Amino acid sequence: MIGEIIAIGDELTSGRILNTTSYFAAGQLFAAGHEVTAMTTIGDDPKLIGNTLLASLARADFVIVTGGLGVTSDDLTTEAVADALERPSTFYPEILNQIRAGSKNAPEDLRLSLEKMAWLPAGAHALKYNATTAGYFLVHENKPIFFLPGVPHEMEELLVETVISRLAVWEGVEARHVRQRLYRVAGLPETTINEKLALLEDGEERIRIGYYPVFPEVHVSLTVVGTKEETTDRTFIEIDAKVRNLLGDNLYGTGEETLEAVVGRLLIDNGMVLALAESCTGGLISHRITRVPGSSEYFLGGAVTYSNELKEQMLGVEEALLAEYGAVSPETARAMAEGIRRETGADIALAVTGIAGPSGGTAAKPVGTVCFGLATSGETVEYKYIFNGERWQVQEAACHKGLDILRLTMLRHDYAKNQSCQRL
Amino acid sequence: MIGEIIAIGDELTSGRILNTTSYFAAGQLFAAGHEVTAMTTIGDDPKLIGNTLLASLARADFVIVTGGLGVTSDDLTTEAVADALERPSTFYPEILNQIRAGSKNAPEDLRLSLEKMAWLPAGAHALKYNATTAGYFLVHENKPIFFLPGVPHEMEELLVETVISRLAVWEGVEARHVRQRLYRVAGLPETTINEKLALLEDGEERIRIGYYPVFPEVHVSLTVVGTKEETTDRTFIEIDAKVRNLLGDNLYGTGEETLEAVVGRLLIDNGMVLALAESCTGGLISHRITRVPGSSEYFLGGAVTYSNELKEQMLGVEEALLAEYGAVSPETARAMAEGIRRETGADIALAVTGIAGPSGGTAAKPVGTVCFGLATSGETVEYKYIFNGERWQVQEAACHKGLDILRLTMLRHDYAKNQSCQRL
Repeated sequence: MIGEIIAIGDELTSGRILNTTSYFAAGQLFAAGHEVTAMTTIGDDPKLIGNTLLASLARADFVIVTGGLGVTSDDLTTEAVADALERPSTFYPEILNQIRAGSKNAPEDLRLSLEKMAWLPAGAHALKYNATTAGYFLVHENKPIFFLPGVPHEMEELLVETVISRLAVWEGVEARHVRQRLYRVAGLPETTINEKLALLEDGEERIRIGYYPVFPEVHVSLTVVGTKEETTDRTFIEIDAKVRNLLGDNLYGTGEETLEAVVGRLLIDNGMVLALAESCTGGLISHRITRVPGSSEYFLGGAVTYSNELKEQMLGVEEALLAEYGAVSPETARAMAEGIRRETGADIALAVTGIAGPSGGTAAKPVGTVCFGLATSGETVEYKYIFNGERWQVQEAACHKGLDILRLTMLRHDYAKNQSCQRL
Repeated sequence: MIGEIIAIGDELTSGRILNTTSYFAAGQLFAAGHEVTAMTTIGDDPKLIGNTLLASLARADFVIVTGGLGVTSDDLTTEAVADALERPSTFYPEILNQIRAGSKNAPEDLRLSLEKMAWLPAGAHALKYNATTAGYFLVHENKPIFFLPGVPHEMEELLVETVISRLAVWEGVEARHVRQRLYRVAGLPETTINEKLALLEDGEERIRIGYYPVFPEVHVSLTVVGTKEETTDRTFIEIDAKVRNLLGDNLYGTGEETLEAVVGRLLIDNGMVLALAESCTGGLISHRITRVPGSSEYFLGGAVTYSNELKEQMLGVEEALLAEYGAVSPETARAMAEGIRRETGADIALAVTGIAGPSGGTAAKPVGTVCFGLATSGETVEYKYIFNGERWQVQEAACHKGLDILRLTMLRHDYAKNQSCQRL
């Protein structure tokens, strides 16, 4: 079905808060086979809320509205909707009971203020209620409208748990077949990827390829649409194989698979444990690695050696080496990697040292210069790159490159190649 | 002036990419005194692009359009705009020259493909051109429309460098006075803050207070609008003082000031250097600290001790202590903090150990249990919290709480209190 998403809140239109709820909803709806044609963000203005909802209802098969459902004085969505749809605000005692039951442990003053959440437009049904999560739906002129909280994790939970399935029931049948895959690409710019893949599109809108730079990597989407399941699948499998072949080693994962998850999988496949020594990235690579559940199986830990003294004390980098080559040098990166591997007993160790900026650059070593060392039992390899951008961009780019160095090292190792490539 | 923002791209409406450009533009326009009433996100559909632009032009004084200006085959904005505004696509040789001059170092095949960017709707003027950044504006029926790239850092640069100033010139006069401040609050839920501050609003729309939970903290905005500069300023100063008083120590900063920046400032004021020992946060606190430019002045580094072995080897935590109390315990947190302080020679050291989940919890220590140790020359203090949510939420909440423990410890120290509080 065709859907529209409306996000409400002055905090969004004034740029104080980034709207992540519409993004999340769009992704979930797309995956469920719906098409979101427009996402509109407006402020806490009752008249604008009403007009926007009426306009979306006129265009779409269903509408999702997020935000403005809470108990504070700037939450105006329910009143605005009651006016616009001519469905007077009605008190639902059973909803208040549910809210009260769900908030037994909340402070008394909070529990009292929750009564506001039991006043809904006539005809509304609660999606689920507890102390902190409000959400309801109503069917207006034969179109379902879902009202969800603006707080991202509350909204996401309700959307996944109830909205997607209610929409499926509402729709009844599957009207068309859509196959989609997202490819995550490291180490190639968008234009180069576009040149490699452009010929795969046949110009009939049956096959659609999208290119999305997500700094510092690029994501590519393949969408195949058809009326018959069998032919849609066949085309999808054929184009998918071509995409994989054209992207080669630069394709690191598909779907939701992150670079750190791929590195974790390769470490498990290789039976290796990892340690890290970070300077300019300040712990970011370690954090990315530990965002993956179960990472304690293959990650020992590491050192964040921001100062030269800690590079000497924690990693055993020699003072003379630091003096001769400087903290940011392939030689120091190599010594850091060997040092953290020796100190921790890890099988594989990565070290990063660089100049994130904005100050600290020189003519010989400009801001953005980052050196990596990668130590295994067999050898230590060093890498040097110069990244562009602001401090956070240099840190993110260095983190991404470091993870990709780990990935490619393990991928080119025989064991990893045999076990992992097919599982991508 | 009243503005609308239109973001274009299938990657946005299908939820593959989070739209950060509209957010950034809204914040900059708000700060410049404009009001954004609606932000619309639509796919790469020429007809929809045209209709949305015409609808926005009918409502707003100016429109900003982002995305779809690149050289790949899914970039359709310029053609759609040319059709909708009946301004035929025109080749601008001088723009192509500028693009070529700005892309001397680009690969030859990329330089050739850039010709597409020199075809613009009739009447368009380039904002600035080089190899990777496209952007133009045109005035249609006496309303300025700005077309900017969808890639966030390119768009942000053009908006700040050229669009804001062109709008100011266009507007000519300042029509009203707006004073605004954002307060960043740690350690209090949204409803409690709302109760504290609700009485400050006078109901006349002259004073507006907004509440924005930004997990795991809450942001509060104060906006005072008036026709006279003097009275607007006076009201703003008065309410600002009341807000600060009511929020007390829970107010950690204003505007763009992050918690890690406040911690850095307090470290400088106290002449202290910091070290960290992280387990469940896996380097996240270190990374937050090092995101701040100049953090090498007060941050030595630390250890990410994910395994028990590393807690022993790098921090000198005794095996017997780990065996008796477990890795996640106030006792271990205390030993980790003292260990990293001893190893690094830091003045102040924070340690974090916890169970981020999803597995690893027990009845006595459920998922979300996090212990902190804070060691200074005078004493070591321990803290224990249980955070709710998924793995990433526990990690983020623990990171935030750790930074706040550092802040409050230094704030309650005499020197810090005298030097820093007034500077907030």
